[in-house]
Amino acid sequence: MNVMRRRHFLVGGMGALAACSETPQSSAPVVSEEQHHWRMVTSWPPNFPGHGVSANRMAARLEQLSGGRLQVEVFAAGELVPAFEVLDAVSRGTVQLGHSAPIYWRGSIPAAQLFGSVPFGMMADQFNAWLYFGGGLELWREAYAGHGVIPFPAGNTGAQMGGWFNREINSPADLNGLKMRIPGLGGEVMQRAGALPVNLPGSEIFTALQTGAIDATEWVGPYNDTAFGLHQAAQYYYHPGWQEPSGALELFVSVEAFESLSEELKGILEIACMAENDYLLAEFNTRNHTSLNTLVEEHGVQLRRFPDDVLDALRGFSLEVVEELAATDPMSGRVLESYRAFAEEVSAWLRISELS
Amino acid sequence: MNVMRRRHFLVGGMGALAACSETPQSSAPVVSEEQHHWRMVTSWPPNFPGHGVSANRMAARLEQLSGGRLQVEVFAAGELVPAFEVLDAVSRGTVQLGHSAPIYWRGSIPAAQLFGSVPFGMMADQFNAWLYFGGGLELWREAYAGHGVIPFPAGNTGAQMGGWFNREINSPADLNGLKMRIPGLGGEVMQRAGALPVNLPGSEIFTALQTGAIDATEWVGPYNDTAFGLHQAAQYYYHPGWQEPSGALELFVSVEAFESLSEELKGILEIACMAENDYLLAEFNTRNHTSLNTLVEEHGVQLRRFPDDVLDALRGFSLEVVEELAATDPMSGRVLESYRAFAEEVSAWLRISELS
Repeated sequence: MNVMRRRHFLVGGMGALAACSETPQSSAPVVSEEQHHWRMVTSWPPNFPGHGVSANRMAARLEQLSGGRLQVEVFAAGELVPAFEVLDAVSRGTVQLGHSAPIYWRGSIPAAQLFGSVPFGMMADQFNAWLYFGGGLELWREAYAGHGVIPFPAGNTGAQMGGWFNREINSPADLNGLKMRIPGLGGEVMQRAGALPVNLPGSEIFTALQTGAIDATEWVGPYNDTAFGLHQAAQYYYHPGWQEPSGALELFVSVEAFESLSEELKGILEIACMAENDYLLAEFNTRNHTSLNTLVEEHGVQLRRFPDDVLDALRGFSLEVVEELAATDPMSGRVLESYRAFAEEVSAWLRISELS
Repeated sequence: MNVMRRRHFLVGGMGALAACSETPQSSAPVVSEEQHHWRMVTSWPPNFPGHGVSANRMAARLEQLSGGRLQVEVFAAGELVPAFEVLDAVSRGTVQLGHSAPIYWRGSIPAAQLFGSVPFGMMADQFNAWLYFGGGLELWREAYAGHGVIPFPAGNTGAQMGGWFNREINSPADLNGLKMRIPGLGGEVMQRAGALPVNLPGSEIFTALQTGAIDATEWVGPYNDTAFGLHQAAQYYYHPGWQEPSGALELFVSVEAFESLSEELKGILEIACMAENDYLLAEFNTRNHTSLNTLVEEHGVQLRRFPDDVLDALRGFSLEVVEELAATDPMSGRVLESYRAFAEEVSAWLRISELS
């Protein structure tokens, strides 16, 4: 199945060229007369800055680029299904498309977390290089195949922030008993550090933090966090975002729906995701700065850096967590092996190029 | 003209959404029955790794995504026009598309150089953020408008290398009298540092270096440089690539050709470029590493870092060069003002996020 499917994708470089050489240059165009009305469920509040707006933009692009042949209606979290049931809904075939983040599928696809973000792992550019040229995307698709969906990278938040805290973190001991919203691998790391991690969809974070149900939360970065008003519910804003040095967003499509598309619409779906992967990262890189400035200068937010011994402790636990995941789940083991080998290689180039 | 044109573009975020809301969800698709046979001239040798392959890939994608309505034949440098006459050819309407790099248009569009790369300037992610969200792309299009072409960002080499040298550079004095192939602003900087810069198309570099016509050359990075065999003609490979901390590639289209496209094909052209901008950077980030390893381990290339006093001197001359450009060419002045303001802002975020 994997081999048969691969020829549909442009990624990998040669697919598109092969497709081209099969088409005689002089042939008249044969534009498919298809019509698709699809639904996209998302894990985000309606029109949420960054994530939600990106989902809307994708839908609009698919419609424009297909000349109206592929129309997509977007649903915010809770409108059709809850934030964390997006994968199930597409997997069951209730809807055709899901816009979400791989870190949420720990329960059903343990390896998915590694495609979302690896604590102390690669940053967005290196992660993308692994996806497209290091075999990462093939592994990602293989990990999701049992659920009948095909994932496409569809944006990246870039490096995130460490989160909002109502308690100062001056030593590893300060993490003891800390109730924090932090999903995915980062949550497991915090648990080992003595904290009490919980996962909450974005829409529930503010209230939980304001009422003291949680002492701390990470969400994304200044741009997104400001949209939720998190600065009104916590005193300290910590960096770096060790738990998500990059944060991948995904658009997944049910295999059945994808196979119903003509080759050109399959290509349009893929290329629209690839373009959004570029565009959304640029948006976060811009707006995070502006928002951070506003937070500090207008709202008096106190910026803090995690002390080195806290980061060292978290790094140690991160290593344990990913290694246990790799040891207990064979797919995660293969993903981690590929990820790590690639990360080691590109970091050598990164030191020579951008950092020097 | 600028205002009229802007609605055709997705970039800027709201264009696509506006287009969507104008289309009733229930409308039947109206797929245009157009047919375009276009020619794309490039500044690269045939099928050249990275740049040339990217141009081929773009052509294949345009054909696939358009369902064969937009067919593009690609010409290497010299096949139809020489490497540095690509802009003229599209500007005159001889061909519809040009694939090149903005650093080459110093003579006809001085400001173009600033869209290619600014010495000691922004890296690829920050540059893209400026293009899409900081007004950079609008300025780029304005700078080219007088030549009847519309540029699209279509790939980035990432940080480049400092170049190949047959002379060790141990102090600023060693740059005196150095004959070096280095185009654009970097060339001007080297001239002030006492060197004798020349510009040569890629295909002529190897011979010039091997025969001693030049003492040094920069081209791109390990991946591209290896393809030219530059390691067989020089002893030392220097970093960092101060002259091009990122290297933008461009696809430009004649205004007349662009206006002949339906709205959906205009969108496909734009989105294919945006996707390639993501994909090609990932390719360079991957292959530069692999190639650098091969150069050092198999070919015994000697890697050198420019001494700090050399970099300091070059940084000082770079400042002079861009400021004089800004003072003598009003368009360059506006571009530089926008570029610098943005660079200063994002660097604050960069320090908090990725670097921490």
